[in-house]
Amino acid sequence: MQHFSALEDPVDQAWKSIRQEAHAMAQREPFLAPILTRTFLEPQSLHEALARRLADLMAPRDMKEDTLQRLFLDVLEAEHSITAHAVRDLIVVHERDPACATQAHAFLNYKGFQALQAQRIAHWFWGNGRTELAFWLSNRASLMFGPDIHPAARMDAGIMLDHGAGIVIGETAVVEDDVSILQNVTLGGTGKTHGDRHPKVRRGVMIGAGAKIIGNIEIGAFSKVAAGSVVLRDVPPRCTVAGVPAQIVRLHSETEIPSETMDHDY
Amino acid sequence: MQHFSALEDPVDQAWKSIRQEAHAMAQREPFLAPILTRTFLEPQSLHEALARRLADLMAPRDMKEDTLQRLFLDVLEAEHSITAHAVRDLIVVHERDPACATQAHAFLNYKGFQALQAQRIAHWFWGNGRTELAFWLSNRASLMFGPDIHPAARMDAGIMLDHGAGIVIGETAVVEDDVSILQNVTLGGTGKTHGDRHPKVRRGVMIGAGAKIIGNIEIGAFSKVAAGSVVLRDVPPRCTVAGVPAQIVRLHSETEIPSETMDHDY
Amino acid sequence: MQHFSALEDPVDQAWKSIRQEAHAMAQREPFLAPILTRTFLEPQSLHEALARRLADLMAPRDMKEDTLQRLFLDVLEAEHSITAHAVRDLIVVHERDPACATQAHAFLNYKGFQALQAQRIAHWFWGNGRTELAFWLSNRASLMFGPDIHPAARMDAGIMLDHGAGIVIGETAVVEDDVSILQNVTLGGTGKTHGDRHPKVRRGVMIGAGAKIIGNIEIGAFSKVAAGSVVLRDVPPRCTVAGVPAQIVRLHSETEIPSETMDHDY
Amino acid sequence: MQHFSALEDPVDQAWKSIRQEAHAMAQREPFLAPILTRTFLEPQSLHEALARRLADLMAPRDMKEDTLQRLFLDVLEAEHSITAHAVRDLIVVHERDPACATQAHAFLNYKGFQALQAQRIAHWFWGNGRTELAFWLSNRASLMFGPDIHPAARMDAGIMLDHGAGIVIGETAVVEDDVSILQNVTLGGTGKTHGDRHPKVRRGVMIGAGAKIIGNIEIGAFSKVAAGSVVLRDVPPRCTVAGVPAQIVRLHSETEIPSETMDHDY
Amino acid sequence: MQHFSALEDPVDQAWKSIRQEAHAMAQREPFLAPILTRTFLEPQSLHEALARRLADLMAPRDMKEDTLQRLFLDVLEAEHSITAHAVRDLIVVHERDPACATQAHAFLNYKGFQALQAQRIAHWFWGNGRTELAFWLSNRASLMFGPDIHPAARMDAGIMLDHGAGIVIGETAVVEDDVSILQNVTLGGTGKTHGDRHPKVRRGVMIGAGAKIIGNIEIGAFSKVAAGSVVLRDVPPRCTVAGVPAQIVRLHSETEIPSETMDHDY
Amino acid sequence: MQHFSALEDPVDQAWKSIRQEAHAMAQREPFLAPILTRTFLEPQSLHEALARRLADLMAPRDMKEDTLQRLFLDVLEAEHSITAHAVRDLIVVHERDPACATQAHAFLNYKGFQALQAQRIAHWFWGNGRTELAFWLSNRASLMFGPDIHPAARMDAGIMLDHGAGIVIGETAVVEDDVSILQNVTLGGTGKTHGDRHPKVRRGVMIGAGAKIIGNIEIGAFSKVAAGSVVLRDVPPRCTVAGVPAQIVRLHSETEIPSETMDHDY
Repeated sequence: MQHFSALEDPVDQAWKSIRQEAHAMAQREPFLAPILTRTFLEPQSLHEALARRLADLMAPRDMKEDTLQRLFLDVLEAEHSITAHAVRDLIVVHERDPACATQAHAFLNYKGFQALQAQRIAHWFWGNGRTELAFWLSNRASLMFGPDIHPAARMDAGIMLDHGAGIVIGETAVVEDDVSILQNVTLGGTGKTHGDRHPKVRRGVMIGAGAKIIGNIEIGAFSKVAAGSVVLRDVPPRCTVAGVPAQIVRLHSETEIPSETMDHDY
Repeated sequence: MQHFSALEDPVDQAWKSIRQEAHAMAQREPFLAPILTRTFLEPQSLHEALARRLADLMAPRDMKEDTLQRLFLDVLEAEHSITAHAVRDLIVVHERDPACATQAHAFLNYKGFQALQAQRIAHWFWGNGRTELAFWLSNRASLMFGPDIHPAARMDAGIMLDHGAGIVIGETAVVEDDVSILQNVTLGGTGKTHGDRHPKVRRGVMIGAGAKIIGNIEIGAFSKVAAGSVVLRDVPPRCTVAGVPAQIVRLHSETEIPSETMDHDY
Repeated sequence: MQHFSALEDPVDQAWKSIRQEAHAMAQREPFLAPILTRTFLEPQSLHEALARRLADLMAPRDMKEDTLQRLFLDVLEAEHSITAHAVRDLIVVHERDPACATQAHAFLNYKGFQALQAQRIAHWFWGNGRTELAFWLSNRASLMFGPDIHPAARMDAGIMLDHGAGIVIGETAVVEDDVSILQNVTLGGTGKTHGDRHPKVRRGVMIGAGAKIIGNIEIGAFSKVAAGSVVLRDVPPRCTVAGVPAQIVRLHSETEIPSETMDHDY
Repeated sequence: MQHFSALEDPVDQAWKSIRQEAHAMAQREPFLAPILTRTFLEPQSLHEALARRLADLMAPRDMKEDTLQRLFLDVLEAEHSITAHAVRDLIVVHERDPACATQAHAFLNYKGFQALQAQRIAHWFWGNGRTELAFWLSNRASLMFGPDIHPAARMDAGIMLDHGAGIVIGETAVVEDDVSILQNVTLGGTGKTHGDRHPKVRRGVMIGAGAKIIGNIEIGAFSKVAAGSVVLRDVPPRCTVAGVPAQIVRLHSETEIPSETMDHDY
Repeated sequence: MQHFSALEDPVDQAWKSIRQEAHAMAQREPFLAPILTRTFLEPQSLHEALARRLADLMAPRDMKEDTLQRLFLDVLEAEHSITAHAVRDLIVVHERDPACATQAHAFLNYKGFQALQAQRIAHWFWGNGRTELAFWLSNRASLMFGPDIHPAARMDAGIMLDHGAGIVIGETAVVEDDVSILQNVTLGGTGKTHGDRHPKVRRGVMIGAGAKIIGNIEIGAFSKVAAGSVVLRDVPPRCTVAGVPAQIVRLHSETEIPSETMDHDY
Repeated sequence: MQHFSALEDPVDQAWKSIRQEAHAMAQREPFLAPILTRTFLEPQSLHEALARRLADLMAPRDMKEDTLQRLFLDVLEAEHSITAHAVRDLIVVHERDPACATQAHAFLNYKGFQALQAQRIAHWFWGNGRTELAFWLSNRASLMFGPDIHPAARMDAGIMLDHGAGIVIGETAVVEDDVSILQNVTLGGTGKTHGDRHPKVRRGVMIGAGAKIIGNIEIGAFSKVAAGSVVLRDVPPRCTVAGVPAQIVRLHSETEIPSETMDHDY
């Protein structure tokens, strides 16, 4: 039996487990039962649950939620990797945030998680030439959730945007797998040329609250940018930078993964 | 007669005075009359006015405002200290913010004030074992008002969250009486252990815009954290710290109360 | 014919051009057609389009959008300079932001642009003695768009509030023509006296992400405040300041206009 | 114990029994649970449940339901006989309509029942000199429920307006206890004088579908007006009238109560 | 001065007088003040007030009221006779209905009045070849107000549709000036041919509650159809018909105007 | 190829043809384009289009349309005959009503058509033991569309409820195929026993406006009940009855189908 479970699709696994959590939550907390039913128990798949949750939060007053849900669902069913990325995001949020008790809770409540999923959908439209729709979605996401992520930015899997407030990520930015980014962080461009002008954040990086990283520079894998730093130059892998402007203050061991330990001290 | 007035309950006093302000405001500004009537003149008590104002702003599209108002009112009527704390918050906002002409104005419009009241209600649910409802309320408050305050954090009385944008306060943080916190401030944790990992801010402290205070450290009473500082170590009482990382730049006299003088220079 | 076109009112010119963009966009992207029709094709003038867009985004649940639209339209038709300023803002956003393809896009989606127009309307009410309405509008704008700009602040023309999140601009602040301000910037006061206590930002200045500028100080024309800086003293014209606290790190040539080049490096 | 139950207030009795029915219904039919909870389980009294149900159905799009609920509740708490009459209406609907399984069902769904309660509230305002509010409520009730009953009409207790569609009852009409009125019935006036010009329907009468009764005439107690009749002259007690114009077609026994037997044949 | 008043446009006169009534009503009845302000005090003309009132009542949930208001206003400003007819309707309603205290009251609350105005706008679209829009408007009007009037029917001025419930008026029907029609009246067609197949009702006629008039027949000027009658043949001028099928029961004097006296007896 | 078309499922055929009509209509009438898109172009099947149209019109303010749409869609997909019956209704409405230009128009706008479909869904719930949900749906349908049809009544295919206002059809009524029923018709019960007490209307019958048919009686196939009649006794096949009470006034030929000829004269 173990074998089959091990081979089960992670999206299906997550969907089953989230529904169980939601069902238990609805029993314990009747006040939330209507929202939990609508978000987790009525949908037939994790695709649909994700499309619905985003649409319920993002639809403007002059648009019915199900119109937006349909738009999202068509994308999620065409491009399965978006939901698969979402599942990886949920796993890391659950692992890294001591305050996050269940994946259903993160799915329902985490602005950073929701903003990230909306961006990946906007990114799909961007890649399919529907840039104006991508911009509009991006604007709705930033109005409702906080993080302002350009639809062209490449956001890989297992990313945590903690709290989300004030986060800005620019057009040519890249955020690789397993990165943690805290509130009020900027991955900003410099100049008004149209070329590649935003940071590349490699895997396993953690960027502390309020850090500003500016220009087409690279934050090396498994490095850490301390809270409040201003980074204008490349950061090598496996080190901590801090200060205004930021300088290397510590080198890491081979096994340290800052985005997972979430240690903000230095 | 004077005697009785002197002994009058501060909540009752505030309620009378706020209603008078609101009544005068509705006369002067007919455009706002419907909102003022709904918020201040229809309710029978400050509890009800507070429950209604928060519910009107926080109810999601799929929930009637009066359902949420009832949830809030039940808490406020069970635990009177929440409204009493709100009254003390109003008093200090009115005293400290030169731009705040009336308490009714702060009650109606100040996101920081509103977020704080929502957190105290969420905190009550947290303390009564309804953590999932507490998280959901906390999420609604951060979506609508900006400040993202964990429902477990202890927020005492007479607190001003000025402007509110981008403020993040973590699970084991404590903010004592008469503290002022400005926009984009983080009271953040470090590590992913579940223990006590957030700052303790003692009474009379003022924390300037954009400051990041991280870890289970103490900001001593009547001290000041200058704008843009990053604080990773304990700060003794009655001093100003500044810089990235923050260092002591000035010692205060015995009588200085930074949260009241709101002097951001150093 | 060319002559007349050259002499044409810039507001009329912008209105024609934005409508053409919107019409083309509605053809290309049917999903957005209802919003584009409502925002750009139904209105009879740029005044009306602006009043409508702001009202659609700012009306609380208990107010019909057209009630708020009428309030705004009356101001815009009484004081034409507000729309004229908006047109200049659109032009600079379009010039300075490589990600901004059309003026219609900025009009529809840019929170910073929208917040600025709402502030200018609130400022008109402030100047006409309707301070309570001005405060309420200011609060709605900050709730919906992010930037929290006091209605008394003087905001000139050709201003870009990039991204908008976490921006706070105080009561006696002045921002002159052609300034660029990025996310999480504070133009804050110091002390709780009622006098002149906020920064004066002269023309052509660029203020980087997360900078905190505090007190009645002057940022000289064509200067630049680097990201993450904390500025507590006057900054002379044509230089870059950086650091916590900020210090001059570079002098500029006579021809450099930081708000236009948007070069965040130093 | 039996004694106390026998002496229990009928309104309290009805409230307990309706809540039990609603609770059981919510268990059996989860789709209706949110409506049942809102209508029957959240309110603290039958007054509140009635005020809420009417407000939820009658509030126009530009009015919050709780504003209207408060208006209604104030009347119901000032004038207890309105709810007491409602209870008697529920009892007779339940007795006379074989399709009505529970009182909760009639309370929730019967347009005729709901229209009658709205009229009694409007009647209270009429009697207290607030004729314009009474008219507006009367209009809302007729828009939403169908029956168009002038707020000045006197509607006694134990009345069934079956189906409700197309019923019109004029200003000086009187409908006494225990009357049944079917769809498309008119109790109309004649002439345009302001005096007493509408029918008086005595107790125990049944008026069949589509009957038109016109002028200041009397329908004697325990009589019956057959479906489709047009009545222009007094009808004595205990008889059936039919036809256009109506004529006596049958005399009744002393014990027959047409409004209860609901026998439409003759 | 009297002279000018006598020559004043009746629409302008009505507008001034209705606004005065509305203003007085808003003073007397604060609960209705928001609706009165929106309906009568904010609009700049009777055209706009009419467009707004109809739009507020007829817009479906998925359409903003101001979108529909604009559609209506464009018609009313293009074809002034519609508002002029409305004014004549208001005058006769006020004269003939003893329960109608003010024109503002009828404008705000009378379903029959509102349905008639909606039909005249739909009729305009019908005449301009936009039959599908005309049908949709006609459907909305019948859903919200009750009377189901085909958009092709010709409805002249000074018409009262009393109560409105259940009224059906077919495609080739004509209703001339100064006619009164009561609830549940049908002006129906016969057969399924496409030609002229509905009644022609000449001026000054009164049709009692529940009467069914069927086929391409003529109801002669100043005649009366008694309540509950079924009319299948032409009715000469100046007589009363009654019964199923209807027969002449009375001849009228030269001066009798049934639609004004509203005498339903015979 | 012709052969396949001839064998094509009538529901599929209707769906294709209605979509084509809707597409053409959206081109001709841009004002209706959003409603047409939502109703006909977004859905993937006639089941979904029907579920959506009914849900959009019937959802109360406190329920999202897509929640109700899902409830309906599950029924329509479980019991295909409901949509098949709807298609037959559309065909006969289109044939019998000269004012009905397209099936899409009837689907979008005809209250009688919509009420009938809602009743068949309620009937399905009734048959599956969910009587309380069936009642609630029935109530919503009668509030929104007019006709008040008991969920237990048996409504066969090819039925036209013309205009719909004031129609009441009771619990044990049966309406067979190809019947036409006009406004204000009652198929009512007599007495308050629970047994079989409502009319049985056989195929091909036409019931004129305002007719009242009462008791467990039979209206024979291809007969006609004239407008305004009151029927209390069985009517044999192939005749016309008229009057109060109704009597046979004409015998029909073998080939006459009153519900199709819609001849209301006699």
